[in-house]
Amino acid sequence: MMLAVPEQSADLYDVIARRRDVRAEFAGRPPADDVLHRVLAAAHAAPSVGHTQPWDFVLVRDAGLREAFAAHVAQEREAFAASLSGERAETFSRIKVEGVRESGLGVVVTYDASRGGPHVLGRHAIADAGLYSSVLAIQNLWLAATAEGLGVGWVSFYREEFLADLLGVPDGVRPIAWLCLGEVTVLQQRPDLERHGWRSRRPLEEAVHTDRYGAPGPA
Amino acid sequence: MMLAVPEQSADLYDVIARRRDVRAEFAGRPPADDVLHRVLAAAHAAPSVGHTQPWDFVLVRDAGLREAFAAHVAQEREAFAASLSGERAETFSRIKVEGVRESGLGVVVTYDASRGGPHVLGRHAIADAGLYSSVLAIQNLWLAATAEGLGVGWVSFYREEFLADLLGVPDGVRPIAWLCLGEVTVLQQRPDLERHGWRSRRPLEEAVHTDRYGAPGPA
Repeated sequence: MMLAVPEQSADLYDVIARRRDVRAEFAGRPPADDVLHRVLAAAHAAPSVGHTQPWDFVLVRDAGLREAFAAHVAQEREAFAASLSGERAETFSRIKVEGVRESGLGVVVTYDASRGGPHVLGRHAIADAGLYSSVLAIQNLWLAATAEGLGVGWVSFYREEFLADLLGVPDGVRPIAWLCLGEVTVLQQRPDLERHGWRSRRPLEEAVHTDRYGAPGPA
Repeated sequence: MMLAVPEQSADLYDVIARRRDVRAEFAGRPPADDVLHRVLAAAHAAPSVGHTQPWDFVLVRDAGLREAFAAHVAQEREAFAASLSGERAETFSRIKVEGVRESGLGVVVTYDASRGGPHVLGRHAIADAGLYSSVLAIQNLWLAATAEGLGVGWVSFYREEFLADLLGVPDGVRPIAWLCLGEVTVLQQRPDLERHGWRSRRPLEEAVHTDRYGAPGPA
């Protein structure tokens, strides 16, 4: 049975609150083409240092490629699990870290440092500023997908070299994210890692300072 | 005369399209406290690797601190200008790169790699994944500010060491962005760097590939 995702608000604050990092709730169907186009266009409208737009999006539809990536992720999961002990190991064992097969579509987001030529306006003092631009595009994509009733799950249990080889990403271009993207049966109301007792939410008040790091912000 | 920003849609796609990187259009007034709280709460609702929430927000209201930072940015602007020649130098000379004084408020966003302890779920294979989380928070902040009719300008003409010293940011925490945040007279319809002929928009079609980097995406 296909569960319809109910019509939901596209109000920015509602979307920000509803957005989740999805692993277990993918329904097995990739987004429709017109929806995918809107989501990618939203990503592509992100700000970028020196207007370089250094991102690219590789849509991974091929089942063999997704299978190969999922197997690699499983290995990396084991490597992380082996670093844990006690309560951490036990808690982690209950947490699903990817939905690569189930989501129906992978969107690999890359960063090309050569985009924009040798003189990138705004990157001479901070080399990472280019990388940040591709991440801003990811958040636009994530929110747009959420507004469309889709789920996104950012998988980071992988080695960049493996993924670059798998998709023919050339030297100098970094595959910075594998995003599982697809229809979902439901979006959880609380982040998985809170629900599973991995880590709790930090109060906003602790994160806000005034004029000096460590000086309390407004109440 | 104070220009009111007209009531505008908070629909996600509208906000994404309206969002600009503001330099010249700040009205000289920082956001009201309740608005600022909503914007910071939106940032704080961003996803983060291992649910680490590694960001902090230093609200820089002090005029002396903003003045010192603006002077530093002016130096870095000169350093970049000196690397250019010909048309690039001339075009750059017309581009304003910051609104530090005019915006009325600086929001410095930091990244603390130690947040989450030694075993961050999802960061063992990709060290930069933590840094990405703070950037995702920035995009939430940027969109929320835009929905509120505010302007944001990300300044990256600075040395992280300088800004860390200025605000007492401890070792191991990186000040990754200075965001000028404040009321605006207007939001430009096109990015500054397009309007000034620095760099044009890339077609979305060029950025989308299928299954392999370089293989064309859907039409």
